[in-house]
Amino acid sequence: MNKDEAFAQAAHHMGHSFDGEIKVGGHYVPLLRNGDTVYISGQIPRVGDRVLVTGRAGEDVALSQAQEAARIGVMRALALVQGAYGTLACVRQVLRVTVYVQCGDDFTQHSEVADGASDLLHQILGTAGSHTRTSVGVRQLPKNATVELDMVLALASGA
Amino acid sequence: MNKDEAFAQAAHHMGHSFDGEIKVGGHYVPLLRNGDTVYISGQIPRVGDRVLVTGRAGEDVALSQAQEAARIGVMRALALVQGAYGTLACVRQVLRVTVYVQCGDDFTQHSEVADGASDLLHQILGTAGSHTRTSVGVRQLPKNATVELDMVLALASGA
Amino acid sequence: MNKDEAFAQAAHHMGHSFDGEIKVGGHYVPLLRNGDTVYISGQIPRVGDRVLVTGRAGEDVALSQAQEAARIGVMRALALVQGAYGTLACVRQVLRVTVYVQCGDDFTQHSEVADGASDLLHQILGTAGSHTRTSVGVRQLPKNATVELDMVLALASGA
Repeated sequence: MNKDEAFAQAAHHMGHSFDGEIKVGGHYVPLLRNGDTVYISGQIPRVGDRVLVTGRAGEDVALSQAQEAARIGVMRALALVQGAYGTLACVRQVLRVTVYVQCGDDFTQHSEVADGASDLLHQILGTAGSHTRTSVGVRQLPKNATVELDMVLALASGA
Repeated sequence: MNKDEAFAQAAHHMGHSFDGEIKVGGHYVPLLRNGDTVYISGQIPRVGDRVLVTGRAGEDVALSQAQEAARIGVMRALALVQGAYGTLACVRQVLRVTVYVQCGDDFTQHSEVADGASDLLHQILGTAGSHTRTSVGVRQLPKNATVELDMVLALASGA
Repeated sequence: MNKDEAFAQAAHHMGHSFDGEIKVGGHYVPLLRNGDTVYISGQIPRVGDRVLVTGRAGEDVALSQAQEAARIGVMRALALVQGAYGTLACVRQVLRVTVYVQCGDDFTQHSEVADGASDLLHQILGTAGSHTRTSVGVRQLPKNATVELDMVLALASGA
């Protein structure tokens, strides 16, 4: 199974379509390339016009839901790459993932939330999905999202 | 109007001068270049020795003031680039802007705050000012600043 | 004194060994290289299996302890570089350090906490340790750590 097939299978398993154009408001863009390095804007667990996971991890939101939020963010990021380059085969290496978790004062399982993102990147991209990671617990996120994550990745030469 | 003129016009419109040297304490620097990539340290809405916008967005600070704080951070960042390279014409592309907003538990307009930064980057730099963006809501910021933002940008070849 | 000797001296002075393998759980890695750029995952003040500084800066944790937490994060990051490349002599320039401080609502000395990291980088790496920096105050961090920091650095050519 190649990376694009793995992406489609993950989308099917999650029960969401990530085909629609991802709109951003204002004067910024979802993805930018400089040389072989691609920067991806912060992604919240939005599918279409709805943010599917909102509220504070550890209070309103169970760990498993927060992990799902992280997975949706990954799918959105990969959908952006697929949209820009036609295939995920162009991803040589995910370099950096930063995971922001909206949480209460006593929630300390940010790494476990971020594992939702990391495991899915590995599942879809294989070793190209290995990445360095930072996960932190913040007070709030846009649209009350439970998780926001951004990425930097490297494209294969020739991509 | 070129980028440096647009910067001067924005400064005039905001009523602040960004000509003074931006001091940083300690063993770090405001700006570093690696190849064509420039990293800029986190900027708070300081002009001279005063932090102009402090407190929590959505509580002590209205959205419009938080947006002004973001704009001041952008002006400081661009002033650093202008100081280092003599002109903003060297900016090929702003790659990444991360916007940290000090906010209360229920504030969810981080994207709207960040629009203050994004719109001004576009106004001054045109398409070179398009960028990927992450905006999050944090508990506090240095000197009680309402907004802190940092940037990564690409220089034009030959710069 | 070269950089590796300065690292060993700092470890001795802090009273900790950073020789052990730094384990990460899940599908991510502590360090990744793309060209001359190295990304390092977020580091908390863990030595072996214990997180040495936990709790909120300004409430449970004094400034000096939070600075020590930042220093331990730096030592871990440099230990990773040393482990990967055999020596710290390969570090041409630390480019970016982001310092996340777990803090209460009224704590505003994030820059002072981050100075713990910056001063130690300078002490060990000299001018190669100068870096751009962002420091913010967050609600929580993995394992209740007081500080988390990540880095991007540039390797010397030939490294």
